Amino acid sequence: MSMETISGLIRDIKDFPKQGIVFKDITPVLKSPEAFAEVIEIMSTRYLKAKPDYVVAVESRGFIFGSALAYRLGCGIVPVRKKGKLPYQTIEASYDLEYGTATMEIHSDALQKGDKVLLIDDLLATGGTAGAAIRLVEKLGARIIGVEFLVELAFLNGRKNIPKHPVNSIIVVD
Amino acid sequence: MSMETISGLIRDIKDFPKQGIVFKDITPVLKSPEAFAEVIEIMSTRYLKAKPDYVVAVESRGFIFGSALAYRLGCGIVPVRKKGKLPYQTIEASYDLEYGTATMEIHSDALQKGDKVLLIDDLLATGGTAGAAIRLVEKLGARIIGVEFLVELAFLNGRKNIPKHPVNSIIVVD
Repeated sequence: MSMETISGLIRDIKDFPKQGIVFKDITPVLKSPEAFAEVIEIMSTRYLKAKPDYVVAVESRGFIFGSALAYRLGCGIVPVRKKGKLPYQTIEASYDLEYGTATMEIHSDALQKGDKVLLIDDLLATGGTAGAAIRLVEKLGARIIGVEFLVELAFLNGRKNIPKHPVNSIIVVD
Repeated sequence: MSMETISGLIRDIKDFPKQGIVFKDITPVLKSPEAFAEVIEIMSTRYLKAKPDYVVAVESRGFIFGSALAYRLGCGIVPVRKKGKLPYQTIEASYDLEYGTATMEIHSDALQKGDKVLLIDDLLATGGTAGAAIRLVEKLGARIIGVEFLVELAFLNGRKNIPKHPVNSIIVVD
């Protein structure tokens, strides 16, 4: 399946979740067995040799790619969630939103020093969430070997928040 | 990996998310490559012949099993989410909580008449969420061929809300 076909499955939803936002609805990509398998294949191919110890996936659409990717690569999956969702002891990292801040958490025993981590989320927008997730992983002493997104909104320049790590996105929206 | 080993990875968190609840923390199962792969293997084996068209996964821990399962079975994945999270046109189903109600949604074009569906969530408690998810799938004319859970809290008798469908859970807590 070509990248154009996968890209064509993503639909724009105007004014979601609020007025003025054009939301990228990826559910048609998930629904297509061929598109979903192809995305996992592309993402995993880069890590077959330098295999990560863990896939760290960001709530909640990141779980959908992270889980299949972890299964494909034969590694474990570690969730990063919004504050208050993880049941055990956590550490947290915050980032600025347009109004206010958001806080993400990871279990404090989720990773050990030296673990190799592949970080995954569905969308790279401003990079705030990914930046916070990276800080959480590194606070625990683990090492990011790559950051993967399905869609990158390049006009928001989110890569400025992920300056030190290899970033890949399958579909780039200019 | 034996069922006892997988079961032993699940940890009890007292008073989460609120006083009096003992929460089953499954993150150590996800973190173990062997346990995670074994769970996906057990769940998928039942559906290798009667292959579903779609795995319908319930937000958000259901995504983690549903995605790897869909990838393993070569089918698409369709999310059921809490009200307000899905961007496109939806249909909804509500169920009673201890206080008030909760509402789940599915995209109205997510399934077609006759589609074979495997439904998945991480935990069977009272069965309210699963019951609502089944109603959503059947409202769209699709057919449930099985319902899979990692953990079943048997003392809550959640199967009473799923009377017509084959239900499997890997770990049963009495």
